[in-house]
Amino acid sequence: MSEKLDKAAQKAITPRAKDYSEWYQDIVEQAEMAEHSPVRGCMVIKPYGYAIWELMQKDLDARFKAKDVQNAYFPLFIPESFLKREAKHVEGFAPEVAVVTHAGGEKLDEPLVVRPTSETIMYDVFSRWIQSYRDLPLLINQWANIVRWEMRTRLFLRTTEFLWQEGHTVHATEDEADDFAKQMLEVYRSFAEDIMAMPVIVGTKSDSERFAGAVRTYCIEAMMGDGKALQAGTSHMLGQNFAKAFGVKFLDADSQEKFGWQTSWGVSTRLIGGLIMAHSDDKGLVLPPKLAPHQVVIIPIGATPEEVEASQAKAQEIADQLRAEGIRVKIDKRDMRPGPKFFEWEKKGVPVRVEIGPKDIVKGSVVAVRRDTSEKQTLTEEGLIDVIKDLLDQIQSSLYAKALAFRQERTITVKDYEDFKNKLEGNFVLAHWCGSAECEAKVKEETKATIRCIPFEMPNEGSGKCLYCGKDADTAVIFAKSY
Amino acid sequence: MSEKLDKAAQKAITPRAKDYSEWYQDIVEQAEMAEHSPVRGCMVIKPYGYAIWELMQKDLDARFKAKDVQNAYFPLFIPESFLKREAKHVEGFAPEVAVVTHAGGEKLDEPLVVRPTSETIMYDVFSRWIQSYRDLPLLINQWANIVRWEMRTRLFLRTTEFLWQEGHTVHATEDEADDFAKQMLEVYRSFAEDIMAMPVIVGTKSDSERFAGAVRTYCIEAMMGDGKALQAGTSHMLGQNFAKAFGVKFLDADSQEKFGWQTSWGVSTRLIGGLIMAHSDDKGLVLPPKLAPHQVVIIPIGATPEEVEASQAKAQEIADQLRAEGIRVKIDKRDMRPGPKFFEWEKKGVPVRVEIGPKDIVKGSVVAVRRDTSEKQTLTEEGLIDVIKDLLDQIQSSLYAKALAFRQERTITVKDYEDFKNKLEGNFVLAHWCGSAECEAKVKEETKATIRCIPFEMPNEGSGKCLYCGKDADTAVIFAKSY
Repeated sequence: MSEKLDKAAQKAITPRAKDYSEWYQDIVEQAEMAEHSPVRGCMVIKPYGYAIWELMQKDLDARFKAKDVQNAYFPLFIPESFLKREAKHVEGFAPEVAVVTHAGGEKLDEPLVVRPTSETIMYDVFSRWIQSYRDLPLLINQWANIVRWEMRTRLFLRTTEFLWQEGHTVHATEDEADDFAKQMLEVYRSFAEDIMAMPVIVGTKSDSERFAGAVRTYCIEAMMGDGKALQAGTSHMLGQNFAKAFGVKFLDADSQEKFGWQTSWGVSTRLIGGLIMAHSDDKGLVLPPKLAPHQVVIIPIGATPEEVEASQAKAQEIADQLRAEGIRVKIDKRDMRPGPKFFEWEKKGVPVRVEIGPKDIVKGSVVAVRRDTSEKQTLTEEGLIDVIKDLLDQIQSSLYAKALAFRQERTITVKDYEDFKNKLEGNFVLAHWCGSAECEAKVKEETKATIRCIPFEMPNEGSGKCLYCGKDADTAVIFAKSY
Repeated sequence: MSEKLDKAAQKAITPRAKDYSEWYQDIVEQAEMAEHSPVRGCMVIKPYGYAIWELMQKDLDARFKAKDVQNAYFPLFIPESFLKREAKHVEGFAPEVAVVTHAGGEKLDEPLVVRPTSETIMYDVFSRWIQSYRDLPLLINQWANIVRWEMRTRLFLRTTEFLWQEGHTVHATEDEADDFAKQMLEVYRSFAEDIMAMPVIVGTKSDSERFAGAVRTYCIEAMMGDGKALQAGTSHMLGQNFAKAFGVKFLDADSQEKFGWQTSWGVSTRLIGGLIMAHSDDKGLVLPPKLAPHQVVIIPIGATPEEVEASQAKAQEIADQLRAEGIRVKIDKRDMRPGPKFFEWEKKGVPVRVEIGPKDIVKGSVVAVRRDTSEKQTLTEEGLIDVIKDLLDQIQSSLYAKALAFRQERTITVKDYEDFKNKLEGNFVLAHWCGSAECEAKVKEETKATIRCIPFEMPNEGSGKCLYCGKDADTAVIFAKSY
């Protein structure tokens, strides 16, 4: 696709400071990650974007399996009546479902909802899988597509159809279920921070922000490059709400029949949107090495066919050594000038670019450029592999440190509600809240800020005054605008 | 799930000779692979069945990537008007689509079809991705769920929703496209034979059996344990049919604008049905080692807690060594008698069972049992790992050889049409065919046999007489009843 890319390379990315939303859209487009489809609100995930999703899946899937979670697959369609069995659940999801009314040329007796999430269809099945306490815990995960009819969509962040995983578990006791929901939150935290290099705040959602049907929603919240919050993953303690609606019961060791305690938890292709906004800059995408489809791109350079051949041979040699160490390497052998190649791989966020030309070969060295800092260095061939491995590790941790420092700078406290309104934009505000839904709703109405989470670890412990009503308040929360 | 499995272990599998269809259903159920869902025709793929699908995906995905095919993801929904653009395509698929008419609480302006296959939605997008011959070949694959409203369904073999991969490519020339369609057929053949241990006949479909919209459909056909045929994979040369309908054009090196030449190819969860029917027996599922979630199950045995502990320690030691060699091992430590464990893993088709008890530990040996032949042998601990690896290789090749011999026995020729009708049941009949759709239709109407394929390699080359009309015929084909 050289011609097309040549064209793309010439197209500028809107500066982030000028228009954040345009900047985001430009990066998604020019890094060839995704595009809008002819179907309203649905996206096409292009190969480069999908390759990032595959890396995310692989890492997460291994983490789930390490917790003894098993993958399975449940139907795309849910009978409309199932959705209605849990009152809060249907209230939350009914307005945004897509409905199949006709199939095989005939009108269906009962309309089928395209899954907006799979609690209802799975738990009906679970009610038959589980008889005894010996069948517990039941730990199931599904990788699937999901449909929620959204009015305003944005690639990766909010689309009518998206890809995700949804874990669903059943436990014998409340404590065990709550503990498992927290364990999965910790899986997400670790994935976000260690793999995506994206620091997150872990905590609980307020009642009005929790999942429709849950008793408690745990979440990880990340700060994006514009200071807004992104809910990056949630883990729900469902209590016995669905168990009672679907008859998920078991005979306990004490011969009593009891309802199961359940959890569900999920992350989606929305994470790719978070990844983009956590690290990227005005030159394009910046990827942490652990999620880069190509961790290193090698550009062989030469003015004559002989020089090109020599550079390519050296590139191949280095690539082979790097690959033997498990590093993902791309050699860009296309018949193009090096300049547009540099631009292209910069836009695509490849962490390390290695340039090899005739002079380098003579000197026994290469030129390496870090994507995150643009730092250019000449590296000797001796020990090169270890130096590049080190460089990748440095980039991974430096991206995390940079994002963390950014969030710390922008996590503020305020004197009062007036001060809050002035300083809200682009910040996380740590404030006390009396716990009333009314105060929460008023703040949202007046400022568009929501309670992103009630952090597990509260930096300003102790009591204070509610941001809105001024009454005594024990709970410290994060207020912010969000995606 | 010990209690439930204990119960399952007591339930008998219907003998294959008594009722093939019941036998199949019993295996799927008792090996806990899948079950019917509350949604008509849709299945729940249970963890054990899904684990087999994951192994299939992993192997196939690597083969596609080795051909430079890139994964991507396209919308689940297709505007109804798209489906209509290719005349044969809509004719083939319109009767079996599910249609979304309402979403977000409102009636849609244009109904959306749930994808029965993705040619139309992808090629509309491809028409914008491709401008120049430099953008070709475009090689895309998608792992996705598919919906086709089927009247009669059977777990894995024919379900309303199924999982599959669909590859879609665009090439500059007819020869290149045809060659690529054949390359992917070879990928499927090799996967079926080398990984599934399921011999297949490769060839071309007759015009009336080919994919709706294709110029030519290549296929792999396998013989199941009842002598019926299963279409296990297809690769379509689409010519320029869709390219013309969707404007998939490119500017060639000669500055002429030309339509692309396209292919599509796919295999689905149907392969799991084929896998079951190719190898299993009256004791349950038989899995080729390359697709077994557990290749070896180790059962530690002991009458006292001390004996159990010693057996488990030895089991762990052996498992660690096997895992270091990349072998998938399960240690069954459940507090149950060994008998039900043996039955359970037999039903689940685990290739090798290893039993370790106090006497074995004293003798420095273990007992190993092959699932396919039930052969029991005592193996000394010395060199055990290599012997087990060998055993797995033997099982893999022996399953293939057995299935091949079975098919060869049951691939017959006949004297005439009367003879054909008598011998058709349970056999592949190799016969000549004049090429007319009328003769083909008559045979189907009168005997329910279809032309499964026109094999690339014809064992009885040369001309003959058409099975039905008796006219001179150059083409030898396989007639059979099929799934």
